[in-house]
Amino acid sequence: MNRKNFLTLSTKAALFLGLTSTISCKDETLEKTETLLNKKAKGTAFGLKAPKIDTVRVGIIGAGNRGQTLLQMFDWLLKNNKAKIVAISDLKKEKTSILNDHLKNKHNTTAVAYYGEPNAWKKMVDRDDIDLVIIATPWELHTPMALYGMEKGKHVATEVPIGTTLKDCWKLIETAERTQKHCMMMENCCFNNEELWVLNMVNNGVFGDLTHAEGAYIHDLRKHLLDETYYENQWRIKHHLKKDGNFYTTHGLGPISQYMDIGRGDTYDHLVSMSSREKSLSDAAKKAGINKFSEVKCGDINTTMIKTKLGKTIMLQFDVHTGRPYDRLNTLVGTKAVHEGYPSKLYINEEELAWWGHKWLDTESYNAYREKYNHPLWSKLKTQIDDNSVGHGGMDFVMIYRLIKCLNEGLPLDINVYDSVLWSSITPLSELSVAQNSSSVKIPDFTGGTWKNYHKTEMLRNI
Amino acid sequence: MNRKNFLTLSTKAALFLGLTSTISCKDETLEKTETLLNKKAKGTAFGLKAPKIDTVRVGIIGAGNRGQTLLQMFDWLLKNNKAKIVAISDLKKEKTSILNDHLKNKHNTTAVAYYGEPNAWKKMVDRDDIDLVIIATPWELHTPMALYGMEKGKHVATEVPIGTTLKDCWKLIETAERTQKHCMMMENCCFNNEELWVLNMVNNGVFGDLTHAEGAYIHDLRKHLLDETYYENQWRIKHHLKKDGNFYTTHGLGPISQYMDIGRGDTYDHLVSMSSREKSLSDAAKKAGINKFSEVKCGDINTTMIKTKLGKTIMLQFDVHTGRPYDRLNTLVGTKAVHEGYPSKLYINEEELAWWGHKWLDTESYNAYREKYNHPLWSKLKTQIDDNSVGHGGMDFVMIYRLIKCLNEGLPLDINVYDSVLWSSITPLSELSVAQNSSSVKIPDFTGGTWKNYHKTEMLRNI
Repeated sequence: MNRKNFLTLSTKAALFLGLTSTISCKDETLEKTETLLNKKAKGTAFGLKAPKIDTVRVGIIGAGNRGQTLLQMFDWLLKNNKAKIVAISDLKKEKTSILNDHLKNKHNTTAVAYYGEPNAWKKMVDRDDIDLVIIATPWELHTPMALYGMEKGKHVATEVPIGTTLKDCWKLIETAERTQKHCMMMENCCFNNEELWVLNMVNNGVFGDLTHAEGAYIHDLRKHLLDETYYENQWRIKHHLKKDGNFYTTHGLGPISQYMDIGRGDTYDHLVSMSSREKSLSDAAKKAGINKFSEVKCGDINTTMIKTKLGKTIMLQFDVHTGRPYDRLNTLVGTKAVHEGYPSKLYINEEELAWWGHKWLDTESYNAYREKYNHPLWSKLKTQIDDNSVGHGGMDFVMIYRLIKCLNEGLPLDINVYDSVLWSSITPLSELSVAQNSSSVKIPDFTGGTWKNYHKTEMLRNI
Repeated sequence: MNRKNFLTLSTKAALFLGLTSTISCKDETLEKTETLLNKKAKGTAFGLKAPKIDTVRVGIIGAGNRGQTLLQMFDWLLKNNKAKIVAISDLKKEKTSILNDHLKNKHNTTAVAYYGEPNAWKKMVDRDDIDLVIIATPWELHTPMALYGMEKGKHVATEVPIGTTLKDCWKLIETAERTQKHCMMMENCCFNNEELWVLNMVNNGVFGDLTHAEGAYIHDLRKHLLDETYYENQWRIKHHLKKDGNFYTTHGLGPISQYMDIGRGDTYDHLVSMSSREKSLSDAAKKAGINKFSEVKCGDINTTMIKTKLGKTIMLQFDVHTGRPYDRLNTLVGTKAVHEGYPSKLYINEEELAWWGHKWLDTESYNAYREKYNHPLWSKLKTQIDDNSVGHGGMDFVMIYRLIKCLNEGLPLDINVYDSVLWSSITPLSELSVAQNSSSVKIPDFTGGTWKNYHKTEMLRNI
């Protein structure tokens, strides 16, 4: 279709749908956004392998809540000389001390600490005795730190999300492709017992052809968001004051994308996103007498729908304002089976259709599937997982174990830069859709078309 | 905004979102659709009361599966002279005989039967001794039969959906406003125990301000759709062969709309709709060797999102192809409480926010809410409901009871023509969105603006 036809048809489409547009930004911004939606990647970081590293030398940026948990996930690896914590960095000295206390008590060693000024972390990354930089800082710092790390010749692994703007997403792709360094987003839910069990069933054909999935981050964070010290300088609630969309996409999208071969035979095509009005977080702020948070832009519940190139659909929710009990949904629908989480339930399609045959498996049959298809990673690592259940019931340990093992053995990582960027890009894309009456937004191809060539076998091998 | 600005901004919007439009219909069709999206109603059938009818004289069109169940719902009303079945009609004589056998056995009476040719029902409606026509026929006949009934001076009540095209929706509004006859869609889930209990809690402020709801029709109908005789001439599967969208919206939308004051202080503004690829129904047809159904257009799972004028959101699903166990979701999120169905769970927001306080009520506390807020209709009708549980556990009886009672007493019906049309219109509107990469579609205001003036107190009064 040439440019003229595209314009003409688009006008018709807008008319057809009776949309009264609310665009307020300038043409210049529109063009920039269109450019970001249509850029092309090289795809040269797909299947990336780096030289084997017998003992991975690690530097950690961010010694807050998450950094403290992640460090504990290294205990087994440190004991077995698979990794070494060389340095740690945080704005605050006392937070680095918490990490060093752990290293001292558990491993009779300490790491060099960098702290006291906003760029302290750069000095740490500049060292020449670090292989991997782990980043557990506020969201908006993940991208600049990951970029700097790769530029300085380090592999990088960041907390979720890896980027919060389309511009950041593209910078990560370009830098990873140019530097040929690993750039992984540490999406821990991809390594959870239930999710890996479902993935294993998918890989063994239990679900048949997949058609639909649902994921979510439903977690009442009001107490955390309003607390004065839980998030350093209350960084997290500031996103909710200024923007509206799904800010935390990857706990749902990570596992679903692995079930659906996203980036390995299929990928996202377009999305629509809708937010409810905001009530609950601002109400809580008012009740607590915190006037500076009495106006919140992010709606209480955001629902985003994604369609893949092969026609699968994903319903993704985000709700950290309301009291709705914790839920990641973890729903997967295929031609032969259906799974729903919270609590986990499995339906197996019987050979013969029934008039009234729609039942979840009873406990005994469910347990049989659970046992038969338990992911080999979880079977293999049972002892270590039991020792590390502080990390969200084991998933954090399995994630760090796999990251280090792949570096030890020179394997591609289970979550590559394309996965990381794609799952995170749904945040800015959802914001675009929400701002336009939930209009349909094209999802960029960050892989340069390589999603067509690679298949699931790249992931989780040599366990 | 003038026409020129509207066009210009729409073009920008389409560009901005990177949509490659797939419109294939001619300009003429586009204009017709735009007209249907922007028509104006008078609103003169809102709060409609008709003269009291001591004994409502009923004619039933359609003596199939549904007609047979509905007749049984009249047993108590017939015994108490609240209603009388005057006539029945069906294409097939033997089906009218099933209804008359019931009347003979239970009430020692019979109704005049009309059958044998496609227009037999018109002769029945032409009678001058019928007050109310009940319509339980294939979907595409609901609108023409309702229109004919009103034109002949009858009140009408049809099975769901009341219309399947925007054109039909507008004809129903225009005819109801002109004839001043009741035109109700019999959405039985609005009268179910769980839904009325939730509604009663909403009306008593238990949920606080509502922000979001979820409803669905998830029901594995493959066996029914493929059966040679269950649906006369296999009428139902034909919709699935030719169209894609949500064909069965009202079981979810009816109760949610009553929770949300839709038509009574708020109404739908726009929607987006997305369907997954189709796999499961065609697979089942192939397995059963039914080649004529081996190509199915309707996707396995359709997800539609609706935003209301006041900013509430509704997530609505439709899945009758897959084995996913039966579910209507019945999720409701407010600032003070959350409900989820299948199985029913309730969360009550505590006064103080908690770090890890996200739990559904335990059985005892749940039961206390269940008892305290049981809807007075269900408390009052307990005995009759227990006698009529064949009608979907009582909801069918309560629905027919209320329909007849309102006619007996000259009250507005609980579900009026505006509700009926609005909930049904989501089918053709979802088809429009699905056909345009899930574009945002404006939802017509079928009430001529009267949704702003009326409030919940119109409904379910004088129980």
